[in-house]
Amino acid sequence: MRITGTFLDEITHDIPANNWGSTAWTREFRTLKSIGIDTVILIRAGCGRTVAYPSVVLEREVKTYPVYEDLVDLFLTLSEENDMAFYFGTYDSVTFATHQRTMQQHLDLGRALIDEAWKLYGQRSAFKGWYLTFEIGEQDPTRLACLRQLGQHCKELAPKLPTLISPYIAGPKAVATPVSLSDHASSWDQMLGELESVVDIVAFQDGHVDYHELPDFLQANSELISRHGMRAWSNVESFDRDMPFNFPPIDWRKLWWKMEAAAASGVDKLITFEFSHFMSPQSSWPAARHLFMRYCDHFGIDPKPSP
Amino acid sequence: MRITGTFLDEITHDIPANNWGSTAWTREFRTLKSIGIDTVILIRAGCGRTVAYPSVVLEREVKTYPVYEDLVDLFLTLSEENDMAFYFGTYDSVTFATHQRTMQQHLDLGRALIDEAWKLYGQRSAFKGWYLTFEIGEQDPTRLACLRQLGQHCKELAPKLPTLISPYIAGPKAVATPVSLSDHASSWDQMLGELESVVDIVAFQDGHVDYHELPDFLQANSELISRHGMRAWSNVESFDRDMPFNFPPIDWRKLWWKMEAAAASGVDKLITFEFSHFMSPQSSWPAARHLFMRYCDHFGIDPKPSP
Amino acid sequence: MRITGTFLDEITHDIPANNWGSTAWTREFRTLKSIGIDTVILIRAGCGRTVAYPSVVLEREVKTYPVYEDLVDLFLTLSEENDMAFYFGTYDSVTFATHQRTMQQHLDLGRALIDEAWKLYGQRSAFKGWYLTFEIGEQDPTRLACLRQLGQHCKELAPKLPTLISPYIAGPKAVATPVSLSDHASSWDQMLGELESVVDIVAFQDGHVDYHELPDFLQANSELISRHGMRAWSNVESFDRDMPFNFPPIDWRKLWWKMEAAAASGVDKLITFEFSHFMSPQSSWPAARHLFMRYCDHFGIDPKPSP
Repeated sequence: MRITGTFLDEITHDIPANNWGSTAWTREFRTLKSIGIDTVILIRAGCGRTVAYPSVVLEREVKTYPVYEDLVDLFLTLSEENDMAFYFGTYDSVTFATHQRTMQQHLDLGRALIDEAWKLYGQRSAFKGWYLTFEIGEQDPTRLACLRQLGQHCKELAPKLPTLISPYIAGPKAVATPVSLSDHASSWDQMLGELESVVDIVAFQDGHVDYHELPDFLQANSELISRHGMRAWSNVESFDRDMPFNFPPIDWRKLWWKMEAAAASGVDKLITFEFSHFMSPQSSWPAARHLFMRYCDHFGIDPKPSP
Repeated sequence: MRITGTFLDEITHDIPANNWGSTAWTREFRTLKSIGIDTVILIRAGCGRTVAYPSVVLEREVKTYPVYEDLVDLFLTLSEENDMAFYFGTYDSVTFATHQRTMQQHLDLGRALIDEAWKLYGQRSAFKGWYLTFEIGEQDPTRLACLRQLGQHCKELAPKLPTLISPYIAGPKAVATPVSLSDHASSWDQMLGELESVVDIVAFQDGHVDYHELPDFLQANSELISRHGMRAWSNVESFDRDMPFNFPPIDWRKLWWKMEAAAASGVDKLITFEFSHFMSPQSSWPAARHLFMRYCDHFGIDPKPSP
Repeated sequence: MRITGTFLDEITHDIPANNWGSTAWTREFRTLKSIGIDTVILIRAGCGRTVAYPSVVLEREVKTYPVYEDLVDLFLTLSEENDMAFYFGTYDSVTFATHQRTMQQHLDLGRALIDEAWKLYGQRSAFKGWYLTFEIGEQDPTRLACLRQLGQHCKELAPKLPTLISPYIAGPKAVATPVSLSDHASSWDQMLGELESVVDIVAFQDGHVDYHELPDFLQANSELISRHGMRAWSNVESFDRDMPFNFPPIDWRKLWWKMEAAAASGVDKLITFEFSHFMSPQSSWPAARHLFMRYCDHFGIDPKPSP
């Protein structure tokens, strides 16, 4: 079972920039296409003062930094050229808050950004879904409210477009007091209950538990997601969480273990955070190129040479 | 407004070595020339036991490590070949002290090294200035005395050669209790007062405050520096201070925001710390090559292909 | 005095994976051969749940992760093709214990793995020695017992094959309270006494003391090792322990200082941890390629261009 989707991490905060321009991105999308990627997911349209496109809403409300180029337009254009589905990641005012906001203000800002994006890009043929950008692992009323109410807003604007979330397991690589499998399951049973009808797809991050515990967690996630009428994908992280610095490309063997565990759990689709830094032949991490080659070898893919 | 100067970080302590030999340095200087760099600044001639040229003075006083090659001669030769001004960075006995020294001993050692360097290299046509290597952000009597008295010594040896310093703002990325703009201004008004007539050029590091606060700090710096009869440059740092490890090349957008802010503040010149690790097409960080390409695209520079 | 041996770090835990397949490894061994490497040392056959070859013993005892390919066979084959000696690194159940084990269980597991490996690979012509993988710097009864009893087991199985250890100095880059030279010497005099007749070669890691203190420590080690009838090698570490993140390739000058100090101490052989990440022209760290070029320049080696 191959990875057929990837995040695009271009409002990055903890991943050093590749510093690609449109030529490199054009080449990248061809590489993505050549190995079977059909879905790209913008991690977020903006975060704090940084924004991926010239947003009048955010400039007015947040005093954004200047926007160098319209990355949403670029990614939509390249998605169209390569016949891919583009998921638009919403604005994150929570994670790196530039000032205190009330819950209502978070929601108002999130909705205003979604409205603006839909007006600007909603007619583009590659605009195929929404990614609700708030990552959540345990009970967190602010994030859960953002997911629910902003997800609801997306569904009202575009009833046919799916909404995607990518939560995490509160495991030993995420928190000091790791959750047990049964507490994880009961906690997420409740949270997914609150997200029914506004979230269509759940792609848990797979990097926060040890490799030998991952199959059981993936199995539990898959069952929970089905029970709530959603589709299960797996976010097979391609960076290594076990190294002395954050983050190099992952060891191929770990990626393989995680892909096998995800396939066994019965998910519909594998996506990754994220190809361009950690698996791409043109990544700034040379080990990513070798990870790409191991991945292609494994699946018998004959990669197109980069021009 | 382009970057026309760069530090040379070859007595490095927190930047991993590129491990270049003279062939790579020769190529590097041609690249520097091709994008308009006219000034190179050796960050320091020595630090603790490590030294950039075979210094009899330091070998006697500090028990230096063996010197593999004379980097000062190499950089002067390449500066001459490429018509650049070379600034000689002084010896740092303070930052990584190998043993306790009195203030007088620091100054004696600093002056002895300056005398030796002037005798060895002072007649070289590219030797165009001194860089007083002590970085200072807040009141620090030792560093301020080093700057004042070693700067004075340089001016006595070579009255026509400019002296350069590159202090930092005690902002949130430098210290736990960040300075306010007004405290920064009054503190530096006093410190620059003590450096009048011995310091000619002040190039504040631009990386320690948030991007939205930078314009006001740069504006204040520019006015302070003029008031004290000095010239203002800006040290547009090309490494990223916002990442989980120290330091990858900076995101192009951040570099652009900072260059714009510096230009608006009315500085005479932009320099960077530093091109060879963080912006060079032959850097050990592949993202640096892409940063170089973004920079060249932005200014319409057609870079010479590296041989 | 050149480096003629290297570790192979392929059950890695704190070094990001290169993600090489057999083509890259084949190229790597040719590079090793071209610069005079005649000895390769597998750092460990397994560690915790991760293992370098399909081990029935470990799968049964530890619930290992799936093994993608038999790296021991690959490395033996490449060693044979390139006329190199291969040292087999034993299993480490101690450093990253997956559950509590008694001393007896550690030893039983270690011996079972050694028996299995000897049965599988002992007849291979490149199988020339054992590397006892437990790193030790100060008194540590568990590790010392593993070294002594597992070394004894190796000698019983294969009396003619040498056993190698690579301990560390408990210096300022290893521990909070660095050992003095005299305490180091007396502590290691005792420990080596306990390892007589089961350990043939001792290659101290050279990275945990300051460069100016290293010559004295190396001299002391060399004398101690001779006194106990063992052979002294030096493990000239090719990664940099002085940087803000762990670990980039070392500054060439530091490698040179350390090689000079080791040669002066009279060791028989220089090995390194390790070539493929930190000195190889095809390493994932581009600075490694430049370190390789500095090394070749220094010794007048004309490296074969990588295909």
